[in-house]
Parts: sequence; C-alpha cells; structure tokens
Amino acid sequence: MVNVMLVVQYDGTDFNGWQIQTKQPASRTVQFEVEQALKKITQENIRVNAVGRTDAGVHARQQVVSFTTNASVPVQRYPHALNGILPGDVVVTSSKAVAGDFHAQYSVRQKTYAYRVLNCRYPDVFLRRYAYHVSWQLDHLAMADAARYLMGEHDFRAFCASGSSVTDYVRQVTQCQVDKVDHLITISVTANGFLYNMVRIIAGTLLEVGSGRRSVASLADTIAVRQRSAAGPTAPARGLTLEEVIY
Amino acid sequence: MVNVMLVVQYDGTDFNGWQIQTKQPASRTVQFEVEQALKKITQENIRVNAVGRTDAGVHARQQVVSFTTNASVPVQRYPHALNGILPGDVVVTSSKAVAGDFHAQYSVRQKTYAYRVLNCRYPDVFLRRYAYHVSWQLDHLAMADAARYLMGEHDFRAFCASGSSVTDYVRQVTQCQVDKVDHLITISVTANGFLYNMVRIIAGTLLEVGSGRRSVASLADTIAVRQRSAAGPTAPARGLTLEEVIY
Repeated sequence: MVNVMLVVQYDGTDFNGWQIQTKQPASRTVQFEVEQALKKITQENIRVNAVGRTDAGVHARQQVVSFTTNASVPVQRYPHALNGILPGDVVVTSSKAVAGDFHAQYSVRQKTYAYRVLNCRYPDVFLRRYAYHVSWQLDHLAMADAARYLMGEHDFRAFCASGSSVTDYVRQVTQCQVDKVDHLITISVTANGFLYNMVRIIAGTLLEVGSGRRSVASLADTIAVRQRSAAGPTAPARGLTLEEVIY
Repeated sequence: MVNVMLVVQYDGTDFNGWQIQTKQPASRTVQFEVEQALKKITQENIRVNAVGRTDAGVHARQQVVSFTTNASVPVQRYPHALNGILPGDVVVTSSKAVAGDFHAQYSVRQKTYAYRVLNCRYPDVFLRRYAYHVSWQLDHLAMADAARYLMGEHDFRAFCASGSSVTDYVRQVTQCQVDKVDHLITISVTANGFLYNMVRIIAGTLLEVGSGRRSVASLADTIAVRQRSAAGPTAPARGLTLEEVIY
C-alpha cells in the first residue's frame, strides 16, 4: 500500500465545486473527475482527501490531494496517465509518494488564496473567468492599508459565512496584501487555516474600503465585533484561486 | 449619417470565427453577435466590416470594426450599451466617430498578431484556451534567430494556406520576434498585411526549428522556394490572438 500525494490544478468555472455530490442527479465536481480517472488507472474505488474543498466557481492552481492505493502504478506515472483521461479544465501537475501518516487536509501548515479584481471601465474577456470585474475606480492603496489589520492571530468570526459549524474562529493570518499590476488588483491571503468563505468576505470588505464606503481604520472594529454582519459582502467566486499549499 | 469605429475583444474558443455564416443552421460567430447587438441599439440592420476575419478558435484583443448608421446614439455610448447585450466572451472596449472614408479593413496600415506556446511538461488550465501546449523542450533562442529571416519584404507564398485566392503574396513584415517569459513563448508578428493562415504557418515552422527538426539557416530557403510544402504545419488556432491594429 502506498500513500500518494497529487497536485491538481483546475478552472472552477464549469464545476459545481470540488466536493463530490451524493445527491442525484449529481452535478459536475472536480473530485468526481479525479476519482473517476484514478479508478480507470488503478481499478480501485479511490476516495481522495483534499486540502481545500473549494466552492462552485473557485479555481485552484495548487490543490493538494492524497489517497492510498494497492495499485502497482509507479507513483511518478500518475500525472501523465491522469492527464490523458481528465477533461481539459483539470490538470495533475505533480505526484509523489508520501509517508503513511500524511493527510492532505490534516497535515497542512499554510495555504495561500488569491482574490483577483479587474479594475477598469470594461471587462476583459481573457480574465472574465478568473477575476471579478469592478468598473469604478478602486483605491488599492487604501485596500492595502486595510489588509494589514487582518494580519496576525484574530477571531475571524466576522469573516465566516453564517451557518458554519466550526466552534473555533481563531486563525493566524501570516500574509494579507494587496498588489496592483496594470488593471489587476490581487488580494493574497496566507493563513494556517480558513473559515468558510473567509477570503471572499475579506475581499468583499476590502472592496468596500477601496470604494470609499468603509474606512481603513474601521477594520479593527470589524474584526473585534465578531459578527458576520460587521464585515462586507461575500465577493463572487470567480475571483478566488487556491494558489499554494505548504506542509 | 455617422461612421463609427469600435474596438472589439473576444475569446474565440467558443466561436466559429469572426465572419457571419450565411448557410443554415448558422454556427456561432462574433460578427453575428456584434451585429445583433447593434440592431437592438440602433434599430437598423447594420453590416460591420472588420480589420481581420479571424478563424474559428482565434482570439482578438483588438479587433477593429467600422459601420455607418443614421441612429442618434451618441458615439461614446456604444461600448457600455453593447456590453450590456453581448455575451461574456465579446467585449467592446472603445468607440469613436471616424471620417466618412475610414474603412476598418482597407484603411489599416499595420496589424500585430501574437502566437502563444506554453512550453512545459503538463498543460496549464488557465492558459489552455489561449496558448498551444508543447510538452517537449523547445529551443526558443533558435526560434528567435529563425524569426529574423522573416523580417522585411518577402514573397510569403510558402506561408499561405493553399487554396487562397490572392495573387500578390508580397508582404512587409516589420516585426517577427520570439520572447519567453516563464514557460510561455510568444511569437509576435507585425506586417502591413497577412496571407491566409500566415501567422499559424510561421508558428508551425518556428516550432519545427525549436524542436530541432529544421535548421535556423534553412529559413532563407523556405521563403525562397515559394511553395506551401516548404514551410511547417499550421499551428492550432487557439494559440493565435489579433493583438493590435494601427491606422
């Protein structure tokens, strides 16, 4: 038996998220595609575990999954073999054998998400799947200032979608920065863990700052109140990409 | 009556090219979408002329079209009004009133096309619609050297799809360069005019040079022979984008 780790990249636009749907008729999910492809290669019914169960429309440059198998497939063969079966919007970019106690979800130390905003008058067809278009002028420097309030260890309850079942809302944010290149604003957030919709709510809140509807200094209060209603709206899924995972 | 110029951007992936199809059932074309949207705004049956009738799967960052209309729509209103009607893979990025004798196709001085090649082991889902993936290592410096042979005024018959009805194959290429950033190789070609499939045949030929199957110095002969069979294959449409137009 071998424990295999795969790095999977996908364009989430045409998927109903990562996680496989049990209800019928099942909609298209990345996990289903990956597990179906693994079944063809290993002849086993494999259930993979993933570091981040991304929502519908969210992308991944580096989703990490792990699974155990008795198949005799050489581990380095998985990317090429899987890419020959997977649809064009899912690509396996690497594979390796990992220790038996490695678990993609539980072993993770840090993850980085990027939220992209195209800030110009008209949309850009080449970015329409990967960035949220905002046509009014955003103050990205104010957004960058506001982002600094989110750095460090905080109770991020205000940035968690209501209805979440977690009990511990404390997370350690080691990076929260806003960069602008041409018309593209990127909000990068690195943390030891994320609450449900956390990055999209951070993005929605920073977009209010950038639009002048929320002050930079108010971010301290937004965090302190620990109520979802204190933060901004949940920004659209298409702008979000799981960028990097560190173990 | 006003003569209007529009700049149109589109993702060609899901289109059967620019030019409207007269046969039924008509497949999806960019020209059809633009003319339908113009009809809604002007209440006129408008026929636009375009600087480049791109093929199925080819993209445009800057397609230029012109048309005359008696509608009283303020010219600067066209982008916003059209973008509200057009599908997400077509965007109008600017408009202006032009002299009565301006014609998008006949008035052009130079056009620039870019052909993009992703050169790494596995595909990239975010570039799959906009770049041709080559998994073996290409020598992009050899490709750049070979590209220089194409600069200047030449009879480009070897780089014209057979069956073309043109009689004059001489074109002036003012730029033909190959750049590499990370894994993305971009072949940029600027000319006063292009033959049918010219950039895709140039790309296919340079890819043979990059693969070691054709020498750099042989490019002089390839041009001189003036036969389609002397050049390389036509590279896939998805890598090609009409980038810039100069009047």
